[in-house]
Order: sequence, then C-alpha cells, then structure tokens
Amino acid sequence: MYRTHNCGELRAQNIGEKVTVAGWVQTTRNKGNIIWIDLRDRYGLIQIVGETGVVTDQVLEELKGLGREYVVQIEGEVIERYDKNPKMITGDIEIKATAVNLLNASLVPPFEIEDDVNVGEELKMKYRYLDLRRKPVQDKLKLRHRVSLETRKYLDSVDFMEVETPYLIKSTPEGARDFVVPSRMNPGQFYALPQSPQTFKQLLMVSGYDRYYQIVKCFRDEDLRADRQPEFTQIDCEMAFVDQEDILNTFEGLIKHLFKTCRNHEFEGDFPRMTYAEAMEKYGSDKPDIRFEMEFVNLNAVAKGKGFGVFDNAELVVAINAKGCGEYSRKQLDALVDWVKRPQIGATGLIYSKCNEDGSFKSSVDKFFDQEALAQWASVCKAEAGDLILVLCGDTDKVRSQMNELRLHMGTEMGLRDPNVFAPLWILDFPLLEWDEESGRFHAMHHPFTSPKKEDFDLIDTEPDKVRANAYDLAMNGVELGGGSIRIHNKQLQARMFELLGFSDEEAKAQFGFLMNAFEYGAPPHGGLAFGFDRLVATMGGSDSIRDYIAFPKNNSGRDVMIDSPAPLAKDQMDELFLTTINPKE
Amino acid sequence: MYRTHNCGELRAQNIGEKVTVAGWVQTTRNKGNIIWIDLRDRYGLIQIVGETGVVTDQVLEELKGLGREYVVQIEGEVIERYDKNPKMITGDIEIKATAVNLLNASLVPPFEIEDDVNVGEELKMKYRYLDLRRKPVQDKLKLRHRVSLETRKYLDSVDFMEVETPYLIKSTPEGARDFVVPSRMNPGQFYALPQSPQTFKQLLMVSGYDRYYQIVKCFRDEDLRADRQPEFTQIDCEMAFVDQEDILNTFEGLIKHLFKTCRNHEFEGDFPRMTYAEAMEKYGSDKPDIRFEMEFVNLNAVAKGKGFGVFDNAELVVAINAKGCGEYSRKQLDALVDWVKRPQIGATGLIYSKCNEDGSFKSSVDKFFDQEALAQWASVCKAEAGDLILVLCGDTDKVRSQMNELRLHMGTEMGLRDPNVFAPLWILDFPLLEWDEESGRFHAMHHPFTSPKKEDFDLIDTEPDKVRANAYDLAMNGVELGGGSIRIHNKQLQARMFELLGFSDEEAKAQFGFLMNAFEYGAPPHGGLAFGFDRLVATMGGSDSIRDYIAFPKNNSGRDVMIDSPAPLAKDQMDELFLTTINPKE
Repeated sequence: MYRTHNCGELRAQNIGEKVTVAGWVQTTRNKGNIIWIDLRDRYGLIQIVGETGVVTDQVLEELKGLGREYVVQIEGEVIERYDKNPKMITGDIEIKATAVNLLNASLVPPFEIEDDVNVGEELKMKYRYLDLRRKPVQDKLKLRHRVSLETRKYLDSVDFMEVETPYLIKSTPEGARDFVVPSRMNPGQFYALPQSPQTFKQLLMVSGYDRYYQIVKCFRDEDLRADRQPEFTQIDCEMAFVDQEDILNTFEGLIKHLFKTCRNHEFEGDFPRMTYAEAMEKYGSDKPDIRFEMEFVNLNAVAKGKGFGVFDNAELVVAINAKGCGEYSRKQLDALVDWVKRPQIGATGLIYSKCNEDGSFKSSVDKFFDQEALAQWASVCKAEAGDLILVLCGDTDKVRSQMNELRLHMGTEMGLRDPNVFAPLWILDFPLLEWDEESGRFHAMHHPFTSPKKEDFDLIDTEPDKVRANAYDLAMNGVELGGGSIRIHNKQLQARMFELLGFSDEEAKAQFGFLMNAFEYGAPPHGGLAFGFDRLVATMGGSDSIRDYIAFPKNNSGRDVMIDSPAPLAKDQMDELFLTTINPKE
Repeated sequence: MYRTHNCGELRAQNIGEKVTVAGWVQTTRNKGNIIWIDLRDRYGLIQIVGETGVVTDQVLEELKGLGREYVVQIEGEVIERYDKNPKMITGDIEIKATAVNLLNASLVPPFEIEDDVNVGEELKMKYRYLDLRRKPVQDKLKLRHRVSLETRKYLDSVDFMEVETPYLIKSTPEGARDFVVPSRMNPGQFYALPQSPQTFKQLLMVSGYDRYYQIVKCFRDEDLRADRQPEFTQIDCEMAFVDQEDILNTFEGLIKHLFKTCRNHEFEGDFPRMTYAEAMEKYGSDKPDIRFEMEFVNLNAVAKGKGFGVFDNAELVVAINAKGCGEYSRKQLDALVDWVKRPQIGATGLIYSKCNEDGSFKSSVDKFFDQEALAQWASVCKAEAGDLILVLCGDTDKVRSQMNELRLHMGTEMGLRDPNVFAPLWILDFPLLEWDEESGRFHAMHHPFTSPKKEDFDLIDTEPDKVRANAYDLAMNGVELGGGSIRIHNKQLQARMFELLGFSDEEAKAQFGFLMNAFEYGAPPHGGLAFGFDRLVATMGGSDSIRDYIAFPKNNSGRDVMIDSPAPLAKDQMDELFLTTINPKE
C-alpha cells in the first residue's frame, strides 16, 4: 500500500503521527523558503508543508519540483495548522513532509481540475479522464453509486431478485430502432441489443420468479436529441399477483427510501396522484412540474364569442396566471411573445392581460375586450392586482403543449423551480392507444403488453381510442422518472391487442410467439415498472442534464470522442462477418 | 394484492386464520370425496384440501377442475394437518379451501416441473420459461442474486465505487474476436461490445476514482466450447496506489465474505499461494485442484537411462501416486490407457506400477525395470503397498498437460473432488509473455497492460520469455475464478510493451492512443482483478456447469432457441445501416 491514510481522513487527533499519503498535486504555493502543496484524492484534500530548516533541502527541492497533477507519495508528520481552514475537512492540520516520492509526472492539463472550469464540452469530453477528476463530477458519480446500491438493498429487502437477462436478443421492428449485432457463427443473421428486458421479465413472471429487478443497460438507435444517449440505464422491475395499487405502493417506497438514504430528504405523506386526462387539462403535460401551481384555466366561456376571430376560431383558449408579474415591462412581454413563437414552441402569438394595482387591466387585445370582459378573465384565473394573465389559443393538443412550455418557462423565470425541492406525482389511467397519422394505425401508448382497464373493455371494439390502460408514470419536477403497467396475461386478449395494433397473426407470432406460447402454460397476473436510472439520479442531484451522471457519455452524434468510436472495421473482420457496407452517397 | 401470504410462510401458529394464497398447481390427489392440491410459488409449497361436506360442492368441483400448472387463487382457513409432512416447511398445516379463483389455465407442459426431469437439453431450452420453474434452477438463480448483492455490499464497505462503463465501444483486433455493432448515424463505422472494461477501468484510476468495481456483461465472439457463453458476466475491479499484496488481501476478503454469507462456509486462515512455475511442475496446471494431493513426481532420475527408449527419448517422465488403487483390475487399467489416448488428452500411452501388498511390484514395463528399479519409483513417489503409480512421458509442456487431465480424472474416480469442499489457491508470478508459433511473435499472457516484475526488468531485452509479470489468478477446485495484474502506469514502459508484442507505433496509437495519452497526465500506480461471475457462482453452487446459473443461456452455436435468435434482419433495417450480407457459399 502506498499510503497509511487517504487525503480526506486526517484530523486534529492525528497530530504527531507519522503518515504516508499519496495523490495528485492540486495547487502549490511557493514562497521560497516555504512551500505549501494541496494534495488531492477521491476522499479529500490535504495540505503538505515544507520549510527551510524544518525539512531537508532535498525534500524542499523535491516539493518545489512538483507541478499540477503530478502524482506523488509524501511521508511526513501530522502537525497542527497555523492558519486553520474551516472549509477543508482536513483544515485543522497539515503534513510536514519528510520524504517525497514522485510516482508520475504530468503534462500541463488542457484545463484546470477545478470545480468550475470554463471550457467547451468537446474538449472536456476528449479529455473525459481529466474532467472526471473534478469534484462536482466525482460527486455526481458517487451519488449514482449510492443510489444503485440503495436500490438493490431496498428491493432485496422486499423479496425482489436481481436476474440478468441477455444482451444479445432478437430484433423487433415494433417501437424504436434496434442496434443490431451480426452473428459470425450464423452468417446473414443478427442479434439485437435490448431496448428493454420487457419480454424477458414477463417470462420470468411466467416462470414464477414473483419479484424481479435488474439495473440494466438498454439501447435505442434513435436520432439523438439533446440529453439522449444511445445506451442508457434502467431500474427494471416486475411483480406477479399484484394489481396497480401494489405496484404504486412498492415503488413509492423505493423512491422514498432512495431520497432518504441518498439525499437525506423525507417526503411527507403519500405521493399525490392525478389522471392523465386531468394532467393534460391542468398542465398540458403527462409529467407536470407541480413544484408550483400556475394551473391552466380554460377561457373558452369568457373569451369566445366576443368578436375576436383568433379566439372564436380556436378549439381552446387557455390561460395561466403568472402571479406578481403584472409589472412586466413592454420589453419583457415582447420577449415572451418571441419565446412562444420560436419554432420549438410554435405558437402564432401570445395574448396578455396585466392586472393593474388600481383594479384596471391592460391587455394586448383591448380592442376586443373591455375592462368588464378582462375582469371576467381575471375572475376565472383568480388573478389579483399585480398578476399577469397569459393566453394562448388553438387546437387543444397543440395549445396545451405550447402552454406547458410557457408555464415551465415562467416557473423558471419566476424562480419557482428550486432543484432542491422534489415534487413527485403519479400519473394514472394513460390511454391504451394513440393514433399515428403517418402509418394510419394505432400505436401502443406504453407498449403492446399493457392491459386495458376492465371498465373500458366494451370500448375496445367501438371506440378504441377512448380505452384507458392500467398504465402509470411517476413524474417529478417536470421529468418522467419512470413508468409501467399491469400487463396482459391472457393469450386471447394479447392477440386482440396485436390485432388492434395492426399486426398480422404471422407478424405477432414471428416477433412475440415465444411470449404468447408462454402465456399458454399458466401465466400469473403481473405488472411492473421501469425507472430511467440516469434521469432519476440527475433529478436527485438537482440537475436537468443526465450527461454529467454518466462516466463516459456519447455526444449528440452517438460518438465517444475520447476513444474515437465508432470506427471502420478491419477488412478481415468484415469478411468474417460476411458483411459489406454500401457507400451512402451512391 | 392477490394473496395475504405466499406459499412458503404459513406455519402452525397461523392455524385458524383466514388466508388467501396464489400460485401454480404442482400436484392434485383426487380421492373422489376429498381432494388435495399442492400449490407452488417461489417461496414454497402448501397443501390445499377440499372435502365433501366440509367445503361447498362448487368449491370441490372447482378444485377438481384444476390441472397441473394452472394458476389459481385460493381463499380458505389454515387448519392443522392430519398427517404432517416434516419435509415441507409448511408441512404442519393445510388450507381448507372456501373459494377458488382460476387465474389462468395451462396446457399440459412438455415436461414435468419436478426437481429431476429426464428430458433433452434442447427441449428444456426451448421451454426455458418452464425449466426456470424447477426448484433446483430457481435455487441457482437465487444464489446468483445473493452473491451479486453481497459482492456489492462488501466492496462498498471497503470504499469501492460501482461505475458503469460503456457497452458501445471501439473494436481492438488484439485478443479475442469482438462482437460489433454497425452505427446508423456514422455509416460504414462500427462500435464493438466490450470483451472487458479494461481500458475504462484504468482510465478511472487515472481519473482518481481510487477503487472501482462493476458487475458487468462482457462479450467474446469465440467459437463456443462446451460451457462457454458469448456473453458472460464479470466482477470487474481496479484499485490505485496498491501493490500486489493489497489486491490479494482485498479480494481474498471478498471471497471469504461471499462464502460466509451465501454458503455459510468459513475458510480457515489465509488462502495458500503458489507460483505459476511451481503449479506447472506439481500439477501441470495454472488452476490446480488442491482438494486432493496426488502431486506430480519427476521420475527422470530413476526412469531414464535404463534402456527403455520411450523414457530415454522423453524430455520428462512424470508420475502420480493413486493412493489405494493398487487393486485396479486389468480392465480398469486398460480403461485408463484408453482414456489418456483419447484425442482430447492425446497421450501415446500410459505406464503403471502396482505396489502389491507383499511388497512386490507389478508394472506394464517389467521388461525394462526390475523390482529394485520399481522400488525406486515407489520410493520417490512415496508409494506404499496398495498404491498405484501412473506414469506419462514426453515433451514437458505436453506431458504436464496430459498428466493434469489424468490427475483430475483419477481425483474424480477416487471421489476426492467433493463439490462441497472448497480449496482456493492463489497462483502468482505468471510469465509476462507467451510465444505464439502461428503468428511468430509474443502475445501478452494476461493482457498488454500487465507490468513486468521489477527484478526481471533486465531480462526484457535479453530473454523476454523469462520475464515474470505482476499477474495472479485465484483458482478453486480446478477452476480459474478470476485473475488480474498490477498494470503499467508509465507511458514509456507501456510503449516498450507494445513493441515487444509486435505493435507498430501507429497501431498502438490507433488502438490505445487515448490510454497512452491519459498516462501523460498523472497516472497513479494501479492494478486490479476480474472474477468470472458465472463461474464463481457455479463453483459456489458446487457445479461444473455455468449454464444453469444463467437465466437465459445460449446454446453451443450461440443461439437462443427459445426466442429463435439470431435471425435475419428486415431489408429496411439493413438499408438504414448501409449494410449487405455476402452469401458465405459464394
């Protein structure tokens, strides 16, 4: 062992001890006859001191020779520090060096290993091994480690078994695009990497494993949006002999356990619940951020039929009340209008009404709405003097989605989205199906194994789009942490579902035959849930971005710029796989 | 919830309680006016009873309608059992059914869900979801779950952090063959699936993570030998600021913890250690089974130069003493001769000498060796009356390997290989390099990042094949559980190593440039170890075969016969990837 102590564990009670530490040189302060060095490892930072007359000249020279990020082993004696540093956990002491052993030198790093470092993402990613030295990044990965371990401890304590499912599976054209793996031993054939262990965990329920979980990598070959990764991690769970209530309670327990053990945060009472329909109506989102209110208000009754064509032609006129924003300047309001008109939001305009302190209103549609009409708006919006009413209109789905974005934007502007406040919310009763305009058929909103609600069975044949599913999501702070469903465990119902989704018998059999066969041999009622692990940890860490919580993330083109991957294969590798690539330009 | 209790938790103290259980029908015994059903779930087996006049006729009829593997929910009252079954944990009680709720019927399964089932492997694998219902298989996967959780708890307790490394990485022609993944977003380019996270864990040491572990899937596209899987699981570990001794102690601690917590087995004292050279000399194997002795005895001094050409021309004449086998019949001896002549072993013959009870010897080479000469053999072999000396000869490496097989075979025949006895052994000082006849160059015996022993540095330039490495394996019961090394952390030494291995500068840079660059920025001394997790759990379970410890294994052609994978891709998938396959027959 190169050390008796790490750089974070020495304290005043160690004064007088002979110790050996090892780590990286964080900083040096050389005053000529005295030199201080901060030595860093994963556990902390400790000050080394060398002074003329106190240490040998050789030691002093060796200390002076150390540059930033040099790796060094220091022997010495723990002494009391003259100017104590209460910000350092080892700040009461320092080590008087008696021997210096240089373990490895370092070039000058391309950026400094500091908490805040102002360099481009590309450079940080190329030198990710240096970026990973920074304390904020290490703290994020420590949190990730802690959350994964506590997840396992909790699930084990309630009888879940971790079972590893295979990574080399079979491609299913349904859903997102698969990454595939050519098989050398079966020329012309391919494995697929799993988008999730869905079918395997259902088979494990058929096999009587009762409670399964796995923290597992999943893969989706999608065009990467910001903060999407081609490989991502799930906490994947399934339970048998349960209904929806059992699942919600079990995983609410897990989330509470994780926040308590890893964030020292206790939730009061049960997580609130809301139906999908209500969430869409009130927040225009199936993952509303309920750290703040600002619920949607339907203005159809008070805003339509007043001769303002834009409203009259709209399916929905919807408002939010930005409390206390009545003083917004012309410039601020224009900026909001520009913001909603950006192509990412896509609104054609934004209408406002300020609630002045004198009880009057000032709106952008004064021509069409007199003070009385605007007072009506204020009344239904519960707006008071000093508030700002913001109104969008259009087709219901689109305008809700736009208003959701505006609401979140206002929440951020108004400082209502504290990353250290956590607001969980179960969303229930998702629709079973959604209509896909492009393919002209229904898609499963969750996935094809999700069961419809019993009370909606009659609608399957008449109004399939009205059928609600036993499907649920856990949202927190405007983010979807996870979701799941009670599955179909009946072969006939599963076959009917495939039919609804436009699968032919042959297609269903080719892709999911083994699962449907398994259902013939005593499948228990079952259901489950999967959490996006990267997203969960990022949310717990108070961050919007998952990338920092992944040790070696890929960029938006799916490249790892550090190892320079993907890359062309050697010709003999291609030959062994009986593969050729076509030049995409041809 | 479909149950108040699982099928394994009811006891005499529950008598009189109204309960609900759910599970699979294991067996039914129908005596007309009374019917018993054993209901099964993961937790156990419980007896349900229905009797005319005691339960309603409807319940009785419903019970009679239940077939094997039907899934059913039973309400009833816990009653004392008339004929208690001490073999069942719930054997003191039974449930008097008051309501039967059929949850799912089952076809007659293709084999019975019993502990022992005499059907072919192919059928079991096709219906793996039914095979997985059998208790011995469930017990194996439960052990696997337990071992993985205890591994994590232990490593966490000694400051290891689990860090997930990427699955979509870069292909390196060195070593075994990679599985590759075409990149749609980077046409003509490929990711590779990791054979191990080796370079990433070394980068994490450069990044200051100090102690890393991961239980992680790895992939090797090798021609499958029996009991090899294309995807397998490793406990992958790395530590900084350590020497070999620290690593051995840390992971000896892990193995002891796992056996104690998961097998209730305590090892006495430290694990024995042996150099690679000694292991090859004494056992002809770098993973000797030391549950029994039967060490090799070099007979060169007493067997050569006696006019027996076969011995005289051999580099090595080597014997083992099969204690107490002196009574082996002619037939048994012939069988042994045939056994060593099989192509898998490849010996040209086997010579024996029986130590008779009267002090005389009977050998297959009596013509060349008189009683005195044979007495010399017996003396060096420490053979006594009743023992059997078995002798092989030939080139040293080959004959050692053959004798290793024979020794293990005799150990098995003689009942010396009890799967519930565990004999760990550290093997140290592996050679750094091995000569590859085919390519005419050195290969790294462990991997190219392994450091040579300091005391052998001088040999690098003169006799590279004599250089020993800081490399070690943990063997147990004739199996390699894991291995590792202290790594090179110096860029120059790493470059020299690549040179020894026949890499050009360009090749080394193209494949491992990022690692060598990382070594320029303050790489600490580091080393690590990886355990084959499948193999570890199988050994702990007392089994030779890893396949049963994997929930969904592949067959020897790399196929999953249950899901029928790999399979051809749809043409549009191929097109999106800019790929075509070549017919291998062309």
